[in-house]
Amino acid sequence: MTISASLPKALLQPASIALVGASADLKKNNSRPQRFLKRFGYEGRVFPINPGREEIFGERAYPDLGAVPAQIDHVFVMVPAAAAPAVIDQACELKIPVATLFTAGFAELGEEGLKRQRDLVARAREGGMRILGPNCMGMVNVHDRIPLTVNAVIERETLVPGPVSLVSQSGSVIGSILSRAQARGVGFSKLISVGNEADLGVGELANMLVDDKDTGAILLFLETFRDADRLAAAARRAYAVAKPVIAYKLGRSGVGRRVATSHTGAMTGLDEIANAFFREHGIMRVDTFEGLFECVQLVMRHKPPRGRRVSVVTGTGGAAAMVVDRLGALGADVVGPSPEVIAALRAKHIEVSDAPLIDLPMGQSDGGRYSTILSTLLASDHTDAVVSVIGSSAQNPQTIVDRVFAANHRDDKPLAVFLAPRADDALAHLQKNGVASFRTPESCADAVNAYLNWHAPVERLAVTPEVAQAQQALRGIASERLTEREAATVFRALGIPSARCRIVQSAADPIDLTGPFAVKLVSPDVPHKTEAGMVKIDVPSERVTAEVTELLTRAGEKFPKAAVHGVMIQEMERGLAEVIVGFRRDPEVGPIVMLAMGGIAAELTKGMAVRIAPVSIETARGMIEDVPALCALAGFRNLPRGDLNALAHAIRAMSLLAAVERRVTDAEINPLIVKPDGDGVVAVDGLLVMAQAVSP
Amino acid sequence: MTISASLPKALLQPASIALVGASADLKKNNSRPQRFLKRFGYEGRVFPINPGREEIFGERAYPDLGAVPAQIDHVFVMVPAAAAPAVIDQACELKIPVATLFTAGFAELGEEGLKRQRDLVARAREGGMRILGPNCMGMVNVHDRIPLTVNAVIERETLVPGPVSLVSQSGSVIGSILSRAQARGVGFSKLISVGNEADLGVGELANMLVDDKDTGAILLFLETFRDADRLAAAARRAYAVAKPVIAYKLGRSGVGRRVATSHTGAMTGLDEIANAFFREHGIMRVDTFEGLFECVQLVMRHKPPRGRRVSVVTGTGGAAAMVVDRLGALGADVVGPSPEVIAALRAKHIEVSDAPLIDLPMGQSDGGRYSTILSTLLASDHTDAVVSVIGSSAQNPQTIVDRVFAANHRDDKPLAVFLAPRADDALAHLQKNGVASFRTPESCADAVNAYLNWHAPVERLAVTPEVAQAQQALRGIASERLTEREAATVFRALGIPSARCRIVQSAADPIDLTGPFAVKLVSPDVPHKTEAGMVKIDVPSERVTAEVTELLTRAGEKFPKAAVHGVMIQEMERGLAEVIVGFRRDPEVGPIVMLAMGGIAAELTKGMAVRIAPVSIETARGMIEDVPALCALAGFRNLPRGDLNALAHAIRAMSLLAAVERRVTDAEINPLIVKPDGDGVVAVDGLLVMAQAVSP
Repeated sequence: MTISASLPKALLQPASIALVGASADLKKNNSRPQRFLKRFGYEGRVFPINPGREEIFGERAYPDLGAVPAQIDHVFVMVPAAAAPAVIDQACELKIPVATLFTAGFAELGEEGLKRQRDLVARAREGGMRILGPNCMGMVNVHDRIPLTVNAVIERETLVPGPVSLVSQSGSVIGSILSRAQARGVGFSKLISVGNEADLGVGELANMLVDDKDTGAILLFLETFRDADRLAAAARRAYAVAKPVIAYKLGRSGVGRRVATSHTGAMTGLDEIANAFFREHGIMRVDTFEGLFECVQLVMRHKPPRGRRVSVVTGTGGAAAMVVDRLGALGADVVGPSPEVIAALRAKHIEVSDAPLIDLPMGQSDGGRYSTILSTLLASDHTDAVVSVIGSSAQNPQTIVDRVFAANHRDDKPLAVFLAPRADDALAHLQKNGVASFRTPESCADAVNAYLNWHAPVERLAVTPEVAQAQQALRGIASERLTEREAATVFRALGIPSARCRIVQSAADPIDLTGPFAVKLVSPDVPHKTEAGMVKIDVPSERVTAEVTELLTRAGEKFPKAAVHGVMIQEMERGLAEVIVGFRRDPEVGPIVMLAMGGIAAELTKGMAVRIAPVSIETARGMIEDVPALCALAGFRNLPRGDLNALAHAIRAMSLLAAVERRVTDAEINPLIVKPDGDGVVAVDGLLVMAQAVSP
Repeated sequence: MTISASLPKALLQPASIALVGASADLKKNNSRPQRFLKRFGYEGRVFPINPGREEIFGERAYPDLGAVPAQIDHVFVMVPAAAAPAVIDQACELKIPVATLFTAGFAELGEEGLKRQRDLVARAREGGMRILGPNCMGMVNVHDRIPLTVNAVIERETLVPGPVSLVSQSGSVIGSILSRAQARGVGFSKLISVGNEADLGVGELANMLVDDKDTGAILLFLETFRDADRLAAAARRAYAVAKPVIAYKLGRSGVGRRVATSHTGAMTGLDEIANAFFREHGIMRVDTFEGLFECVQLVMRHKPPRGRRVSVVTGTGGAAAMVVDRLGALGADVVGPSPEVIAALRAKHIEVSDAPLIDLPMGQSDGGRYSTILSTLLASDHTDAVVSVIGSSAQNPQTIVDRVFAANHRDDKPLAVFLAPRADDALAHLQKNGVASFRTPESCADAVNAYLNWHAPVERLAVTPEVAQAQQALRGIASERLTEREAATVFRALGIPSARCRIVQSAADPIDLTGPFAVKLVSPDVPHKTEAGMVKIDVPSERVTAEVTELLTRAGEKFPKAAVHGVMIQEMERGLAEVIVGFRRDPEVGPIVMLAMGGIAAELTKGMAVRIAPVSIETARGMIEDVPALCALAGFRNLPRGDLNALAHAIRAMSLLAAVERRVTDAEINPLIVKPDGDGVVAVDGLLVMAQAVSP
């Protein structure tokens, strides 16, 4: 019996391939894989499968997989959706380790298609086979010359080996990136189209690439997250072995999110959640298409920066100003040379000012001056990255070499080069020699900014005592949707204080609290209590018994069938600001914690901070800084300071719900009142929703 | 006597050129103009001026301008700054109409240089000569083969004639644009580097280009505005003759503003002011470098749009999603096909959904379907622009022709084509045939968004009665910095009510107002009265006499030398929001009116609206919509509505200060209280500053 190849080998480096649905018609997509494999000199065996042909492009064709007289590592399926299950079944019988399905007509078509897709995966699982796709364009292994794909771009392109691998949720984009990047001197290792990700997902594939000796950097073109946990783990492993993971993700806008996922049947959430995920796991995110591949050499061999500082040097002011302007707009800190740099250059008879752009006058950027400045900046601690903007001399690649390489051999920190005129040769020349070169000021600033925003993966937190306390508090609670009071108990167990309150059954019950009060009906059967008139606020102590009676009477009239558990009397709390602190299990990325302004401010001021939960106190402080309106509480303009320390602790506490065993799906404190510094925070209202007990 | 050429002809199409400081050394910049003119076949006469040479590049050299035996239309000056005045003097004597100064060492070096520059211009003015520069790279007239420039890019480029002219405040950027655009099939008419704009400015040059028969579109690369009034007039003329004016302007960020202007000694203001200027005068603004030239064909032959709607059609989902996502993020309204479009296509057996992206499945985008969809969209009223995103077929220009041109001959509305893979030939082919083609999803979305933001020039307003009333109110006021009360009188004359108040000299004076009150010391000698404790707010009626006495006593103790004009008792006003309404004469663009949130909200929420003053009521309403926090007053979430109608009238009234004869330089109402709908607005505090009487 033949031993099957391992999954990564069968998927990415198969020794034998069957092409089911192969065609001899040059116009058909189905003819491409065989032609491409031949053209690029694939060294393994190829078996076209087509019951209607004896031979295709000089190769013997077989009626079905069973007729192939050899072990098959990888089957590439191009038959219609209805015919796919039979192919999968036969492949399973033959112990073929992996199938790639170009075949479409599954989850991307909706509910019916999703059912077909699930059935297909179930068959494959049962037979011990893995699936790439369906509805994918296949895979290209450049080093081993295996273009196992229907991507039309391969028709005209050569394949340039290099360290860059790409996993893409859009198949056609692979061709676009390949054609653009190769012309720019960027070579590839593996390019993988994942299609509907019914089985093999971006995360598992990225994980294989971490182990791939020919891969030095992993690019991701993403529309959504379907296996976020696996991707998180892969990104952390990649970080540990210094293979940068760089993502371009659609979904910056609502309409972008809609179209990004419409054709693959995925769901996708707010862009802030994606950012939180990337940040948590050490993934760099770019915002421009070409920035995705242009930036590889910017980050390879480098660690995340210590600050957000960047130096820019040029002999061509206008073009450099475009990069500086955009860096500034993106929030990077464009810094002039430090006194030490100025002094070091002066010692070499080069005078520069401390202006944010080092702009050498015309004619003064040669004679070794330019590369001396560059290498001095690259060696200095006052900055985290260096941008060099080159003008007309970019059209002479040799000049660039003299200027940039003399400096870049230091490699202390990332160097980005933007070439102002058209200079395709120089762009390619630089990339081939390991220097990140950019074609537009926008992609240059984008990539540098992405580098400056890059973080090491956040360390996983140890489980803390509050988690056990919250678990204890949840033990006695049977319902899935907790009452406000039950929720407050859990929040208190986590360490978040809440407004003092009592539940009374009638106006006769004693109330040992200090007014004014909020008075609310307690009933699981009356939703939207404020709108229903079942909440009274600012009730003075002397009015409270009357209000209780009135509320109970009105409730009896208005909601005669509702179970009434009493009336809650809650001390009114005042502070300097109201915030919302939320927790949620996001369907894509898992537990997240969120901070935003509360009340009307929440709707009117942008700025929500989101992180993957749980978070450290330090991360919670970073979240507070991310909400601009909260700077009013941080000593802004002599306004009273809020207790932001207590707020950070509350955020961290909320995030610990991620570690609680009984699965909390949603929690929110709205509002959490932030009091003056030293006086803490207090939860006024909150909700907490548990997963159904039967959930996995 | 020879008659001098007209200025435009001498500047842009000279029949004879003197090159002062010409060099025979190939390595020197000074050798370039003569070599360039020769290489491209300039048909006029060229006179190199160099006292040290008999001959340069085969042409006889002259010791000075006076030795040239013919009339000179245009003198190009490359001597050091110290030698420039003598050249200018001699040129004036010889009645040469225009000099271009490559010579640097003027305003860009600071105060000293600015003096030298003013002296130079004064000499030229006296002699009846105009100056381009100094510190500029010169001019290229492509149609007439006159590369009168030192720009190094010309060394390697051909010159491709076309309808596009460029005026640039950065000289080197001209070379970058020329080399990039020509390779992309975009041809040029005139390219002008303006340098320090000591005499001829962007506006006057743009105005010449409006009259230039070879110019069909005017591009501006701007760092600042130095002759905004002329540029405004030129842009309005250009609009009237359907020559689009498209600007790229630096200064989106603070650091960008600093570096944009450091090397030419200019000042520049907030980016919102630049936007207000462009909008006012019908100039389109792009945000990406290549978008500047890629978009010309998008707007030529078209009027500004009626809405912000755009349709996107593709056969390659992932790449199109990048454009859609970015369009959405920029605020464009990506619309799916209307029921009428869906029905019209169905009649031709083409099924599309109403999703925002028309994404044809693989293999269904040929057979005439694609161009049928395109032409149907281009003819439909449900959208204002159409984007076509093309995948691998872009590498076959003939396919593009079939698909796009069949549709584009309609030309009902702008069409943008983004080519996803590398497809340089197709990009150039499309542009040459009048179709706007884009190299990146970012520049494509940017240009379409710029088009959707494009407005016809705002109609100039007739002078209204309020202006005369304000003039009348100002008549009795001698000071430059008006008191709060004087300012309120002017605002009231314009139609903006202010809080009722009285000035009392002692607690004995009667007060016929309704409390609570704000009580403020009136003294020109006590600045920052709130900080000095000379303002009390929320004073109830019964406390007001005591407060007056107390304030006067404290003022006497604390500021014994200050002139005290009494105490102002002002009725406290409450409303739904506080806003700031401001007026200013911006040093670059002239009178502007501004609206922002007042109080702390002003600091914490972004969103300021700026327009060129004066504005119509309609424009004022648009400003209110531009401040997101004000949507709280527009019927948001059942909150009480604010009197936004009264606010619009107040903004318009403030903007009328632009038309008041006595020159108001600054005015501000802060806060203006917006009351519930129907109750109006009321100014609580304000300032008004007049220009010094001697100002021009």
